[in-house]
Amino acid sequence: MSVIDETLTANQEYARKFAHASLPMPPGRKLAVVACMDARLDIPQILGLKIGEAHIIRNAGGIADESALRSLIISQDLLGTEEFIFIHHVDCGMLTFKEDKYISKLRKQTGVSAVAPARFYAFDNLEEDVREQVQKTKAHPWIRKGTTVRGFVYDVKTGKLKEVAA
Amino acid sequence: MSVIDETLTANQEYARKFAHASLPMPPGRKLAVVACMDARLDIPQILGLKIGEAHIIRNAGGIADESALRSLIISQDLLGTEEFIFIHHVDCGMLTFKEDKYISKLRKQTGVSAVAPARFYAFDNLEEDVREQVQKTKAHPWIRKGTTVRGFVYDVKTGKLKEVAA
Repeated sequence: MSVIDETLTANQEYARKFAHASLPMPPGRKLAVVACMDARLDIPQILGLKIGEAHIIRNAGGIADESALRSLIISQDLLGTEEFIFIHHVDCGMLTFKEDKYISKLRKQTGVSAVAPARFYAFDNLEEDVREQVQKTKAHPWIRKGTTVRGFVYDVKTGKLKEVAA
Repeated sequence: MSVIDETLTANQEYARKFAHASLPMPPGRKLAVVACMDARLDIPQILGLKIGEAHIIRNAGGIADESALRSLIISQDLLGTEEFIFIHHVDCGMLTFKEDKYISKLRKQTGVSAVAPARFYAFDNLEEDVREQVQKTKAHPWIRKGTTVRGFVYDVKTGKLKEVAA
């Protein structure tokens, strides 16, 4: 049985006990989170969020890339969120490779170039990179001026968040 | 107290009981999930996933956009995942607006244009859009040929997944 088939069996059990049928579309706590895709981060558990309370946006690194920005704009402008959090984490895969070398490696490995992704957003300094994402989001012309955007580093060894940008 | 401050208080409690200190970076079940950011979707619960088992990528809609593709490439090529799932859902915000009108609205509202995001990925047909994301991913030159990519629609009223693309 493939892993996906196993998750579908688990989903049948989830649906049998399901008790969230009447939640509205807008997040109850008006919060949007942007975090890394890392398997060790369970965002609802880390932040004590219940189903229906927050938008959760995730990508490799927890970057304010074009996708996260379009998601945050929709979140704020159409669905009423008011506060944003960025979460990077210790021992991130994005610290393990270099942007240019990685693109060359993929080209050689596959024998072809690709138009997109044009960039992988590898980084060297965890805290600096969080600050960059927070600044980029605050400065975007389609994000409301004065929006609360705060940035954290999560420690996968302790479960703790440390604030590094506000 | 802001919602973010409340989540930090919840995080202290999470860290106090934390028992996942020694998980490795690569996802234990070699799975990557791409799902919508919607607040009603708790992906680990929906799929019965434990901490450390799967990469979770989320954006408005659950789209295989440039960000999700770069994340899936890193997931497969650097961190060894072998199966991908796409999850869209019933009552999605992406069904509530039209691409071109929305960009014009943001321009008027803010008085400025923005280079990025260039596209918001609104869609009309949930199942067709899932199939498009699955196809786009399978066809990407930097995703290994023959990778298992399956697509689902999640029902926010029942907790059930329905397969619509494989």
